[in-house]
Amino acid sequence: MSVLQRLQQLGIVLPEPISPLGSYKTLSVAGNQLHVSGLGPFENGQPMVGIVGDDMTVEQGQHAARLTLLMILACIEHAYGLDNLQRCIRLTVYVRATQSFTQHPAVANGASDLLQALFGADQLPARSALGVYSLPMGIPVEIDSIFELKPAGHDAVKRS
Amino acid sequence: MSVLQRLQQLGIVLPEPISPLGSYKTLSVAGNQLHVSGLGPFENGQPMVGIVGDDMTVEQGQHAARLTLLMILACIEHAYGLDNLQRCIRLTVYVRATQSFTQHPAVANGASDLLQALFGADQLPARSALGVYSLPMGIPVEIDSIFELKPAGHDAVKRS
Amino acid sequence: MSVLQRLQQLGIVLPEPISPLGSYKTLSVAGNQLHVSGLGPFENGQPMVGIVGDDMTVEQGQHAARLTLLMILACIEHAYGLDNLQRCIRLTVYVRATQSFTQHPAVANGASDLLQALFGADQLPARSALGVYSLPMGIPVEIDSIFELKPAGHDAVKRS
Repeated sequence: MSVLQRLQQLGIVLPEPISPLGSYKTLSVAGNQLHVSGLGPFENGQPMVGIVGDDMTVEQGQHAARLTLLMILACIEHAYGLDNLQRCIRLTVYVRATQSFTQHPAVANGASDLLQALFGADQLPARSALGVYSLPMGIPVEIDSIFELKPAGHDAVKRS
Repeated sequence: MSVLQRLQQLGIVLPEPISPLGSYKTLSVAGNQLHVSGLGPFENGQPMVGIVGDDMTVEQGQHAARLTLLMILACIEHAYGLDNLQRCIRLTVYVRATQSFTQHPAVANGASDLLQALFGADQLPARSALGVYSLPMGIPVEIDSIFELKPAGHDAVKRS
Repeated sequence: MSVLQRLQQLGIVLPEPISPLGSYKTLSVAGNQLHVSGLGPFENGQPMVGIVGDDMTVEQGQHAARLTLLMILACIEHAYGLDNLQRCIRLTVYVRATQSFTQHPAVANGASDLLQALFGADQLPARSALGVYSLPMGIPVEIDSIFELKPAGHDAVKRS
């Protein structure tokens, strides 16, 4: 089953992809790797705002991480097609949290649990999760990612 | 026009490249990718110091990001030659800012606007911008970067 | 001399490798690169906790960085074998420090000095060191890393 079919099966609708907030590209291809710019969580077209451990719970942070991954997927689908992805190689999850916050891995699971559902447990990425002091627009989570592209000439029929 | 010629046309003089502050190399080549260590802004041979949103404005932060990119370019020119660069693949811009700061993308533009002027808008990198709590020497901006090298045997005459 | 032999010569015993704290893999291979998840320092099976510049000195931070590198090496040895590593390409060292802390490079040396002892000074990685606001479990240091793998078919006899 393709990633798009799995998303549909899970009843997930991707958000509108956002445009860059400056002089960069959301996606940058290097060989068979797709580097994705740091992205954040949007709901109803608006960025989510908050600090995890202060005005947001761990569960709300997880939800923000999940929404961020959906934005990553939406941007990839818009520009390249999700079915050209082999797997995610690495995720870096920046959590805007209080100084005493310790549950960054739980927050990051909001993103990587969805990767597991889409790509399978044997295809999980390396991951880093850490707490930052501030983030663009006041978002609670920002995620960097690198994906591996399928070799050229893979079952491209699915994209037609 | 080469990157060096564009720098000259823009009237930009590169700073003196700095040496590593410990047991690492400023530049690390992996295949056709050049990994550049986190670098910061220098003026007249001294590191710039400050916190964006506190004792530095957004515009001063942008200037710091631009100076940091110039240091990156100076280190690459010194060791490999800028004309061996194909493009920048990824920039990670760490901004030492206040907790309520939200304009990290504007600060980061100080670096990537210059990349755009040097490499062209179609060659812009993926970018992440985020706010950190402290940085080495008290610098306001630190930038990580990965560049793509031209294939061996490209127009090497330019370097002679 | 192999990396394992050098460790033995230095009298270093690797810690027990830790398991992922969520839906990710500690190690993710992409081509000839090994991406290692963000890891932290453990002593006697317990995570070290603290803030550098507050309840931890620079020297204690260095020790934490060294312990973190030992955990990275332990996880690689457990899953792939250290003798399959060519070199470290890049280290990102996140230090949980006070806002006025400036000696991140000294802390990071705790990790990269050991890399130098194991792989040689000519094989040092690119490195970034920065100060974050919070880290998982309250650890004082987290390190991201990318290693280069030896080509398939290298002196595999050493592993038997």
